[in-house]
Amino acid sequence: MPTKDCIMTVNKQIILDSRPEGAASTKNFVLREQAIPDLRDGQVLVRHLFLSLDPYMRGRMNAGKSYAQAQALGEVMIGGTVGVVEASNHARFKVGDTVVGMGGWQTHSVVDADAPGMLRTVSTAHIPASAYLGAVGMPGVTAWMGLTQICEPKSGETVVVTAASGAVGSVVGQLAKARGCRVVGIAGGEEKCAYVTDTLGFDACIDYKANADSKSLYGALKAATPDGVDGLFENVGGPIMDTVLARTNPFARIAVCGLIAGYDGAPHPMENAAMILVNRLKIQGFIVSERMDLWPQALGELGELVAGGKLTYRETIATGLESAPEAFLGLLKGKNFGKQLVKLSD
Amino acid sequence: MPTKDCIMTVNKQIILDSRPEGAASTKNFVLREQAIPDLRDGQVLVRHLFLSLDPYMRGRMNAGKSYAQAQALGEVMIGGTVGVVEASNHARFKVGDTVVGMGGWQTHSVVDADAPGMLRTVSTAHIPASAYLGAVGMPGVTAWMGLTQICEPKSGETVVVTAASGAVGSVVGQLAKARGCRVVGIAGGEEKCAYVTDTLGFDACIDYKANADSKSLYGALKAATPDGVDGLFENVGGPIMDTVLARTNPFARIAVCGLIAGYDGAPHPMENAAMILVNRLKIQGFIVSERMDLWPQALGELGELVAGGKLTYRETIATGLESAPEAFLGLLKGKNFGKQLVKLSD
Repeated sequence: MPTKDCIMTVNKQIILDSRPEGAASTKNFVLREQAIPDLRDGQVLVRHLFLSLDPYMRGRMNAGKSYAQAQALGEVMIGGTVGVVEASNHARFKVGDTVVGMGGWQTHSVVDADAPGMLRTVSTAHIPASAYLGAVGMPGVTAWMGLTQICEPKSGETVVVTAASGAVGSVVGQLAKARGCRVVGIAGGEEKCAYVTDTLGFDACIDYKANADSKSLYGALKAATPDGVDGLFENVGGPIMDTVLARTNPFARIAVCGLIAGYDGAPHPMENAAMILVNRLKIQGFIVSERMDLWPQALGELGELVAGGKLTYRETIATGLESAPEAFLGLLKGKNFGKQLVKLSD
Repeated sequence: MPTKDCIMTVNKQIILDSRPEGAASTKNFVLREQAIPDLRDGQVLVRHLFLSLDPYMRGRMNAGKSYAQAQALGEVMIGGTVGVVEASNHARFKVGDTVVGMGGWQTHSVVDADAPGMLRTVSTAHIPASAYLGAVGMPGVTAWMGLTQICEPKSGETVVVTAASGAVGSVVGQLAKARGCRVVGIAGGEEKCAYVTDTLGFDACIDYKANADSKSLYGALKAATPDGVDGLFENVGGPIMDTVLARTNPFARIAVCGLIAGYDGAPHPMENAAMILVNRLKIQGFIVSERMDLWPQALGELGELVAGGKLTYRETIATGLESAPEAFLGLLKGKNFGKQLVKLSD
């Protein structure tokens, strides 16, 4: 069995060093190098190929009440990873296996592979490894879950998706199109909007940067949703969500997946909260990890679509662990285009 | 068969004369007198005993999009009534019957009694006539529906009710207590709060007037809800609702029944909108008239409780049709105590 000495002696890690006051900054992170420990029974050493960067990580950086435990200070930042087994003390995992897990912001992880949900082997025969962090991973399942379980779109209805070019939004829209809906995206900038309509196949996409005031945004939305809005998949929150509320039809369903607009603590001015009552809206937040029972069904549909070339996705790839903090802050500001990844090794 | 001449020649009516700009005012209404027409086949003449005043009427006064048609200008204001049949050209209704309907802000109404849901006969043997506009009427069913269909409280959970001393809120709390919940009301003023705890039997009641800033309100709420909030029955909206969001437990359910705070067009500053995601809240608006299928079940439970003296309610009664506009504006400002009625005749 290989030992750490013949593979690599050092694991590079990014540690949460301090909590943000207001906006997150690169100063909240610090790089650390650590020797890779010997494997105990049942443990697996994984060399990470890709690290996933996701908006939920911003919430974990705060000390306050959130849906999950806060990320501990002085510890490796949490994060999804796809990697290759370098050494194994576990019968189910072999050296060379491609594995998906929660390895965190580091080049390697030592995983207790028996712990449920920690590590699963995936096939890269028809699906690229990186897709298991995107369309066929947590973001894809998030899209599937919010759309099918909360928005519950019916053929002919109109579904609006915010952050439409992102890892989640892009999947939401394509799944809704496949269900016969009119799909309208909201994204930042001409290039992203063109991608959303021309490549992803949404019926329309509204550039929120070109419609910076809510009146202008409402006008653009009205033109794009002549029959109103029956479902909203909300990744952003704040004034954009508020504006969409004003276009809802009676009994519209709103899946709240992300509220990036509020992660830095700014209040949401709700001009259209009365729509909750006027249109008997259902607004529901959800966390993809709480319905593990639905993952197999979701991953089945998503994997089949990606393998068959019927689900398009795009990636923004930063290179090297050191680039992760900057790439993460860019993600929070919408600088990425599609799924934001960090490539850690080949 | 009696004719109009032997009963009364004049029907007094209150007409919506103009739409409010900002807050509603008595100037939006005008009094009109009209001869009572002869009854056609299938029609019934009702002399109103009580007119119900309800917050939803404020929404109808606006021209804008609402869940129902706007109240037409120049027409009698809409409103629930309980009255006595004075003359009848319909086989199912006899002179002297007590009937509940939507007679509007007028002393009499001529009703096409065959139209579904327009008029139903009720018994005053064990339930006072006025209760059919409150605890055993639309407000009671509203309470029952929001609580049982959206809040879905389980024994041991904590339910918060805003406008707790009102016609709806008082019933919500008593029904939730009967289901084994800890029930906390929010109401305006010491007298109302004392009524909510001492007479209605809520576990606690918070005086929002004595806790005018959200920090103080949050502190009082925290003390009253040591285990957090699992269900919220929301009659008010605005900063009070926002503050309660900050005390929610994961998977709390919020029934949005009324948003009085927004009826005059002020935006809702949502400081705690992020809780929708953090706690995977379900927030749902509803309109009691859209689930007529549930009314029999609700009225059955409510009627039994009132007849058995197990459901307490309180009424504020203004006298004479002319007093309706002032009483209605008082209701919007929380000046009433319990169900606001206008007594029109004995």
